[in-house]
Amino acid sequence: MSAAVDAVVDAVANVQLADAKPRAHDQVITPWEVQGSVAADGKQEGIDYDKLISQFGTRRIDNALLERFERLTGQRPHVFLRRGMFFSHREFDKILDRYEQGKPFFLYTGRGPSSDSMHLGHMVPFVFTKWLQDVFECPVVIQLTDDEKFLFKHELKPEQTKQFSRQNAKDIIACGFNLDKTFIFSNYEYMGGMFYQNVSKISRQITYNQVKATFGFNESDNIGKIHFASIQAAPSFSNSFPHIFGAVSNIPCLIPCAIDQDPYFRLARDIAQKLKYQKPTLIHSKFFPALQGPQTKMSASDPNSSIFMTDKPNQIKKKINAHGFSGGRETEEEHRRLGGDTEVDVAYQYLTFFLDDDEELAKLGEDYRSGTLLTGQPQGKMYFPIAERRTAISEELVDSFMSAQRQISPSCGRAQAQAAPAAVEATV
Amino acid sequence: MSAAVDAVVDAVANVQLADAKPRAHDQVITPWEVQGSVAADGKQEGIDYDKLISQFGTRRIDNALLERFERLTGQRPHVFLRRGMFFSHREFDKILDRYEQGKPFFLYTGRGPSSDSMHLGHMVPFVFTKWLQDVFECPVVIQLTDDEKFLFKHELKPEQTKQFSRQNAKDIIACGFNLDKTFIFSNYEYMGGMFYQNVSKISRQITYNQVKATFGFNESDNIGKIHFASIQAAPSFSNSFPHIFGAVSNIPCLIPCAIDQDPYFRLARDIAQKLKYQKPTLIHSKFFPALQGPQTKMSASDPNSSIFMTDKPNQIKKKINAHGFSGGRETEEEHRRLGGDTEVDVAYQYLTFFLDDDEELAKLGEDYRSGTLLTGQPQGKMYFPIAERRTAISEELVDSFMSAQRQISPSCGRAQAQAAPAAVEATV
Repeated sequence: MSAAVDAVVDAVANVQLADAKPRAHDQVITPWEVQGSVAADGKQEGIDYDKLISQFGTRRIDNALLERFERLTGQRPHVFLRRGMFFSHREFDKILDRYEQGKPFFLYTGRGPSSDSMHLGHMVPFVFTKWLQDVFECPVVIQLTDDEKFLFKHELKPEQTKQFSRQNAKDIIACGFNLDKTFIFSNYEYMGGMFYQNVSKISRQITYNQVKATFGFNESDNIGKIHFASIQAAPSFSNSFPHIFGAVSNIPCLIPCAIDQDPYFRLARDIAQKLKYQKPTLIHSKFFPALQGPQTKMSASDPNSSIFMTDKPNQIKKKINAHGFSGGRETEEEHRRLGGDTEVDVAYQYLTFFLDDDEELAKLGEDYRSGTLLTGQPQGKMYFPIAERRTAISEELVDSFMSAQRQISPSCGRAQAQAAPAAVEATV
Repeated sequence: MSAAVDAVVDAVANVQLADAKPRAHDQVITPWEVQGSVAADGKQEGIDYDKLISQFGTRRIDNALLERFERLTGQRPHVFLRRGMFFSHREFDKILDRYEQGKPFFLYTGRGPSSDSMHLGHMVPFVFTKWLQDVFECPVVIQLTDDEKFLFKHELKPEQTKQFSRQNAKDIIACGFNLDKTFIFSNYEYMGGMFYQNVSKISRQITYNQVKATFGFNESDNIGKIHFASIQAAPSFSNSFPHIFGAVSNIPCLIPCAIDQDPYFRLARDIAQKLKYQKPTLIHSKFFPALQGPQTKMSASDPNSSIFMTDKPNQIKKKINAHGFSGGRETEEEHRRLGGDTEVDVAYQYLTFFLDDDEELAKLGEDYRSGTLLTGQPQGKMYFPIAERRTAISEELVDSFMSAQRQISPSCGRAQAQAAPAAVEATV
């Protein structure tokens, strides 16, 4: 009897221990979960991106690649490339080959509309894709996976996720995409035609075993989830967009996305070969750090972890002060004497991604580290032209970007002459 | 050494035995396989429909139900009802309740277009649905699952199954459906909008475990197959057809189909409750016997088992003579003396389904059994007005039946007054 009581006491003690200190584990990166590893002493670590590159089998974006990019396009690499926000790729070099040869390609990115406002982390691929569109003068397709969010989040209804799609489209449009070369679509609205035909072709090439291995599904998961990979893969293939590419199926795409989306497109690359389509190429970003620090990413479901596009400047300042992981010292006196730590200061980290001026950033960093710039001051430099522009986006403009009833030219800047006739031929 | 040789000899002998005589097994009825049981002595048995009723948990269509039908509609039950071709149902009585109360409902049936010609067995649900449409004056939706055939048959391409859809639509139209109240659709063409929204709602309610248990899938099956049940269930719900029912989601359907399709709709009935939709009701047919006899159904993949709608009258006669299981005797003399067996004669069995005149059928049967009517003569009475009409179906008429761009009235004969305003309200 006493032994049994002891066992219960032990068990309770162990439960409490387990609750008090997170168990040690490796980092977990899937399309639904991003968590840095936890060390044996319970310490939460940052994401190890080098490990991800070797684990996923991607390639690092190195200086040679950036130099070639600059040589070919005549454009200085974007701050996200210079400062390593986009750090990894799959065959980005092949897209540069095509650019050099004047052959067409397109950009594909997307978003799962889980709420009606996007946060700073969500904007990273769009800000970057818009910039790539300006450089390459190429078509862009943007998938809003309102069906996926409905399938994965039991509290949501299709009416809601469709509404989120439209609201998110405004944030995206506010990045400055070229209407003449950009098609934004909601899966609920666009599903059908050649797009659906590609979805079914892709789904015939993927077994339950493969999605189980890739995404960790189990037998209690719904068949919508299990099938969804086919829908995310379909925009990788140019003939999913007859109003842009006609029936041409051999124009490859470049997908700017966060590294956690890579499993979807690894599958898509396998399938491309089987369907005799072009493999999608990828350029991967790091996760945008949460206010609480770089061990996880901003999450829309935790409002305190994120700065939203709809937040007003004074709200942003308050959030950073209240929830932002600070590199400052306990007191002003101590800060002035010892200086702040830019390595961990979240506001400073955000500036490294959004402040294009290298000199200004260097000066800010120096001042902060030396103690002349106080805690709470770096975020004064954060400004959000996108958020300002967003309020001016009309419903009519959203309709225009989301219309599949218009013809979009498949041409790229250098590829204008070659691309147009090919697409015209194919639509005959 | 000698023992090993003996074991091999035994094994080979066993293999040959197994090949020579089919193993005893119970009947197998799934949407993809229909086989009567095989007895211990290797004898192939006919389908046991009573067993199916108790196994599937459906209800027998009895005389009381048929009498009520005749009383309410003023129509004598169709030959398929009188002679037991449609033998089982799920809540057909509730549809009769609605008819009595003047409340609207619709008919839903479908076809997997696996080849460009349909056979006599395929026509059964359409001939019957057309007749029900005439009696009830109600809308009919007909799903052509060209996506399913692509997903399940690796040798086919979407371009082919889409073409089969159009060809099969001609056979179906030739049954005489009312254009003003009939919508025939190919999944590849119609997928999208509210139909797709219902597909995704349904798919969220079905787990991999359920489709595994219902259809016998395994982990090597493709995710398109696994997901397909959602697409077959979606037309059960009225709001999948905004051009007929607007946004009204509470109009139930009656599904005439062969009993092997019941597993799909058992799932659909479960899901209806979860989505707060009306449960689909069903009326089940037996399988149309193959030329080789009643132990299996006609199969399009075995041309000798089937009479196709594109077969000419002399081809039909030849097929029945060459492949039809005959109830006649070995010689004419013997036949005249002993008489034929109508129970097993395939041509006679076919006539029981297609010859409406009870007296004429009785007379034919009598003459055949007495020996005055010879083998090969019953099929002389088989004529195919549908096959004749088919040649007159134009591509334009197919376009009209398959157009979702027109408004179809949701009203039923008796329900005209009540139904129309409801649908108008809902589309506002």
